[in-house]
Amino acid sequence: MKAANNRGFASDNNAGIHPLLLKAIEEANTGHVVAYGDDFYTESAVIAIKKFFGEETEVFFVLTGTGANVLGLASLTSSYHAVICAETAHIHVDECGAPEKFCSCKLLTVTSPDGKLTPDAVKSHLHGFGFEHHVQPKVISISQPTEMGTVYTPGEIKELSDLAKQYGMYLHMDGARLANAAVSLNIDFKQFTVRSGVDVLSFGGTKNGMLFGESVIFFRKDLAENFRYRRKQGMQLASKMRFIGAQFEAYLSSNIWRKNAMHANNMARLLFEKVSALPGVQVTQKVEANAVFAIVPQEIIKPLQDKYFFYVWNESRHEVRWMTSFDTSPEDIDGFTGYLKSLLSLKRQLT
Amino acid sequence: MKAANNRGFASDNNAGIHPLLLKAIEEANTGHVVAYGDDFYTESAVIAIKKFFGEETEVFFVLTGTGANVLGLASLTSSYHAVICAETAHIHVDECGAPEKFCSCKLLTVTSPDGKLTPDAVKSHLHGFGFEHHVQPKVISISQPTEMGTVYTPGEIKELSDLAKQYGMYLHMDGARLANAAVSLNIDFKQFTVRSGVDVLSFGGTKNGMLFGESVIFFRKDLAENFRYRRKQGMQLASKMRFIGAQFEAYLSSNIWRKNAMHANNMARLLFEKVSALPGVQVTQKVEANAVFAIVPQEIIKPLQDKYFFYVWNESRHEVRWMTSFDTSPEDIDGFTGYLKSLLSLKRQLT
Amino acid sequence: MKAANNRGFASDNNAGIHPLLLKAIEEANTGHVVAYGDDFYTESAVIAIKKFFGEETEVFFVLTGTGANVLGLASLTSSYHAVICAETAHIHVDECGAPEKFCSCKLLTVTSPDGKLTPDAVKSHLHGFGFEHHVQPKVISISQPTEMGTVYTPGEIKELSDLAKQYGMYLHMDGARLANAAVSLNIDFKQFTVRSGVDVLSFGGTKNGMLFGESVIFFRKDLAENFRYRRKQGMQLASKMRFIGAQFEAYLSSNIWRKNAMHANNMARLLFEKVSALPGVQVTQKVEANAVFAIVPQEIIKPLQDKYFFYVWNESRHEVRWMTSFDTSPEDIDGFTGYLKSLLSLKRQLT
Amino acid sequence: MKAANNRGFASDNNAGIHPLLLKAIEEANTGHVVAYGDDFYTESAVIAIKKFFGEETEVFFVLTGTGANVLGLASLTSSYHAVICAETAHIHVDECGAPEKFCSCKLLTVTSPDGKLTPDAVKSHLHGFGFEHHVQPKVISISQPTEMGTVYTPGEIKELSDLAKQYGMYLHMDGARLANAAVSLNIDFKQFTVRSGVDVLSFGGTKNGMLFGESVIFFRKDLAENFRYRRKQGMQLASKMRFIGAQFEAYLSSNIWRKNAMHANNMARLLFEKVSALPGVQVTQKVEANAVFAIVPQEIIKPLQDKYFFYVWNESRHEVRWMTSFDTSPEDIDGFTGYLKSLLSLKRQLT
Repeated sequence: MKAANNRGFASDNNAGIHPLLLKAIEEANTGHVVAYGDDFYTESAVIAIKKFFGEETEVFFVLTGTGANVLGLASLTSSYHAVICAETAHIHVDECGAPEKFCSCKLLTVTSPDGKLTPDAVKSHLHGFGFEHHVQPKVISISQPTEMGTVYTPGEIKELSDLAKQYGMYLHMDGARLANAAVSLNIDFKQFTVRSGVDVLSFGGTKNGMLFGESVIFFRKDLAENFRYRRKQGMQLASKMRFIGAQFEAYLSSNIWRKNAMHANNMARLLFEKVSALPGVQVTQKVEANAVFAIVPQEIIKPLQDKYFFYVWNESRHEVRWMTSFDTSPEDIDGFTGYLKSLLSLKRQLT
Repeated sequence: MKAANNRGFASDNNAGIHPLLLKAIEEANTGHVVAYGDDFYTESAVIAIKKFFGEETEVFFVLTGTGANVLGLASLTSSYHAVICAETAHIHVDECGAPEKFCSCKLLTVTSPDGKLTPDAVKSHLHGFGFEHHVQPKVISISQPTEMGTVYTPGEIKELSDLAKQYGMYLHMDGARLANAAVSLNIDFKQFTVRSGVDVLSFGGTKNGMLFGESVIFFRKDLAENFRYRRKQGMQLASKMRFIGAQFEAYLSSNIWRKNAMHANNMARLLFEKVSALPGVQVTQKVEANAVFAIVPQEIIKPLQDKYFFYVWNESRHEVRWMTSFDTSPEDIDGFTGYLKSLLSLKRQLT
Repeated sequence: MKAANNRGFASDNNAGIHPLLLKAIEEANTGHVVAYGDDFYTESAVIAIKKFFGEETEVFFVLTGTGANVLGLASLTSSYHAVICAETAHIHVDECGAPEKFCSCKLLTVTSPDGKLTPDAVKSHLHGFGFEHHVQPKVISISQPTEMGTVYTPGEIKELSDLAKQYGMYLHMDGARLANAAVSLNIDFKQFTVRSGVDVLSFGGTKNGMLFGESVIFFRKDLAENFRYRRKQGMQLASKMRFIGAQFEAYLSSNIWRKNAMHANNMARLLFEKVSALPGVQVTQKVEANAVFAIVPQEIIKPLQDKYFFYVWNESRHEVRWMTSFDTSPEDIDGFTGYLKSLLSLKRQLT
Repeated sequence: MKAANNRGFASDNNAGIHPLLLKAIEEANTGHVVAYGDDFYTESAVIAIKKFFGEETEVFFVLTGTGANVLGLASLTSSYHAVICAETAHIHVDECGAPEKFCSCKLLTVTSPDGKLTPDAVKSHLHGFGFEHHVQPKVISISQPTEMGTVYTPGEIKELSDLAKQYGMYLHMDGARLANAAVSLNIDFKQFTVRSGVDVLSFGGTKNGMLFGESVIFFRKDLAENFRYRRKQGMQLASKMRFIGAQFEAYLSSNIWRKNAMHANNMARLLFEKVSALPGVQVTQKVEANAVFAIVPQEIIKPLQDKYFFYVWNESRHEVRWMTSFDTSPEDIDGFTGYLKSLLSLKRQLT
């Protein structure tokens, strides 16, 4: 078991449950309701999501972010299709091959230093249509924010969706941290999802304060037609679903999504400001959401991790990722950067 | 949305969270811990499970009962294998083809009025070994208790495991309601699992009071070797796993499993006694766990469901299933049987 | 290696290549043509098939009967669907789980002594529509002739297709020996396929004299839309496809299909007449195509197999299957039945 | 239907059947033999292959090159594994996602201008071992010759197999054109397969003169244990397998493999010499087997294809692939290069 600080910078899913979301669970814990989503709490959550994303959406709750991504992609693809994504995409790097296993299709990756896809990069895979020896490109999948902590503008997303439409393809968005993107862009969810041409969206809650709870949002009803069978077959149907619904309802209706994401983003911004002032620390990505990527001296990584746990992103160039979460405090940032500073200083003295 | 009574008899997963398990979640909600199971709470839960099932077990937590069954079976099979089960088995009837989808193998079913497999019934499928045109039987899968509310004795299980061993096969047990079986048999878990020859077990918590939480228990370490990849690829790896761990630890260490299951079983026994005294109600299965199956006059089903929700098991012979849960009260039983009695009486008057 | 007689009664695929079909291969063996089916021979074969089955069909050549069945079914199903078939169906019993592997869906079987499905038997599986826990029935699959050597009438097929349509399902036909059925019914192919409501057909050649060559025929163009990708992905795309095309063209245009099938059927009829006159032989199925099923004394099976190889169909009741093929001669029948008679006689003397 | 010259340079599988291999088919076309490989011809072919590859090998015949590759890889992988290959690999580019569909695992690609993998390139993917979020690298797959017409030396192969062993991985070789590599290296098959550390080999016959016929050769018996089930389930089990066996026996025992491959390689060499002398033609790859890659003026591609069919390899830089086969004649080369020369000359006059 890895040692864990009280609060570190490893991931926003190392945090616990936001008190108001736990309260929502407690309040829903009364009497019997029909299992598997046919209940008041789930219905309320669907209504809440439609308020934010449009009445025309179809909404389904699932258990994990990987589940949301994979089942969303399964609704868009047959086994002979291909999904184009960034080489850093969660679906490619962090889901242990679940998309290939469940969708049976191929992921075609694009090199992307900042985690974003561009139309030009995608086009390198847009060939072989109609050629039976070649997988047929069918989906462009982007993460918003990206795995590198950057955020697509609505215009960038629109360009990709236009390209997708031109080729009879779909645009899928992994929004495990969608709230952080909305806060970063300071626009509402619709602007950079349905209005920018996204067809299917994974909208996550776990990384922004829920115990567990993810959703798949379809912006075209026809694509959602058989989702409930895929969800059950995909082992993503929660029996006591009311407790996901209760969280999502509170999350959206009580503005928790916004407060939590704004706080996490602000903490990342603060962290960025403090560490970028330190000699020996080279921030490698724009800080647009709740992650800071930086190259630091190799020697200080281990001692720093021991006190504040985080992950090394790229071993070979000792690039690390520091993530903030809804419960990161300014004092955490101070403590962390202070300790980092002292390690850097110690290192300079010793070498 | 189906109407739901405050408490009905539809399923034990229509109940909410047991207060002490919710308390365990609340107490684990402090600070950061490493996600995905590398934390104190998960470790404690593993230790608790090993106390009950043996130090030699390998334990993994997953999100749903279907997930536990499917991933357990995936650990035992290749795509050209077959799993032999009762035609009423949850894996055959209620998982929307998830075993076929994820394991790619065939389920061979056996007619079984009481939900149990017998060696003779299984033997009808034990042929074609070594014949490449035929799927290769590899697993016998049983549910304990069965979907019909009956409970295997250790001797019955042992007979099946002996048969499995004789053919180089495995014995898998779906224990979504294992606690109810243990209480019913009044023996410890080991007696009717590892000591009766079970190789892999789904040990569930959700149906006996948890918010969510299932586990896969391997009684042979070699079978568990790659489970963690299957779990992630199978979209069954919870990020904030500490909250499953915290529940399981409390569930076992505080004896909640026993109290809840005993209560549910007792309520089923009480229900059985009351309804079997009613003319027009024909109980169709032995009541050994927390389910009562009965044939009732068709006309009374709908009005009864409207007040106390439950499921019709067999439309054609109007057989219904009534399940009790940890929170069923004697007053619920009284209210239900009273109303049932009045409906039966009304029916007699009208016909 | 099993010993083989010069000609036995094991299966029509133990025969070799019909001389005229081998000649067609030889004649196509000139110069270069584009691989994978974009050639004159394949085009001619498609034209020939359309003459028999209708201009509106879509035709694809594949390599094996299992391939034809599985890819046809894959065109009709998603992973959460179910295929209803007889418990003796080739797709259930003889394809080592290929349908489950490739289609990821469940096969629901029906007990059927003569190998045929009936609407009543199928209806036992027509429930759970719209219920997400249950696989969704989508295809009725029949074999024509059946694996028991019986032949559906057009009326029987129409009843099944009507039932399928009523439930939004498809009718699939495994016609690995379709020519034998056509000859048996003495009607043209259209009558008992497209005009009886079949949606997708496996139309085989290998069992009736080809070296290799099977086809999938779609009676609705929309179902065929993506078949070429499935065929390639399903490893069923022959590179030198001209040699399948050349055989199919000759098979149909030169009436070889009819002569071969008629001969095989006639030989089965002759065999039936001879063996049914023998005391101790009990024929168990109607002889409507090129198979004779019979229960014989257990002791004579082994010596009979040693001289004329065939398969035991049901060990427990010593039922055997004798198949005739395009090259079975009346002398083979005489030799076989003579030897059988002598074994039966010997047996009577010894017991 | 694409027009085809009498003989073009599109692919060695556009050629027909070598006369001696067709003769072997004819000679095997006598009487009945047990289907599915339990026959004399198949046994003889296995013996012939063992003479060339070692007595310790396990040999299986399949129907297509894609089938050989995919089933070989399926024997080495579980769904959570990854296969590392060149971005030009047939398994990645030309099999319509069959490896992902059948093995359910991920292909990790490496940029490779000459079609070869190197240890350094492979190492870029050798991380994440033991990390459950990441697919587990399990196979290095190389093509010999490569898709770019280059040939690995035994030393290069050994380096890759050493790397594989070091990481507990396997080395897989796609030898659809293995004979061309053997002739090119002028060493026997063993030297650059089993003795260089290859674990599983696809050994093809179709591209070097067979009607159809591919094989999977295991150099470790344990890996082959369940192959026959995978082959049947993978729809790659030929019923009249004797005709594959008869071809392979003749192919190896009568030295046809060598003569055909040597001829094809010599023709490629001749073609290379002629075209590399032409101004405006830039050969882009070493000509080590039977393919010539060249960049030519875009305007001449279409008229040249109309007379001698071939494929464009890279549209954007108008790079073409010209393949020779066992039946390419020096006159074909003369005619082709003469016409090419005249087109180039015409182009110069017009511009």
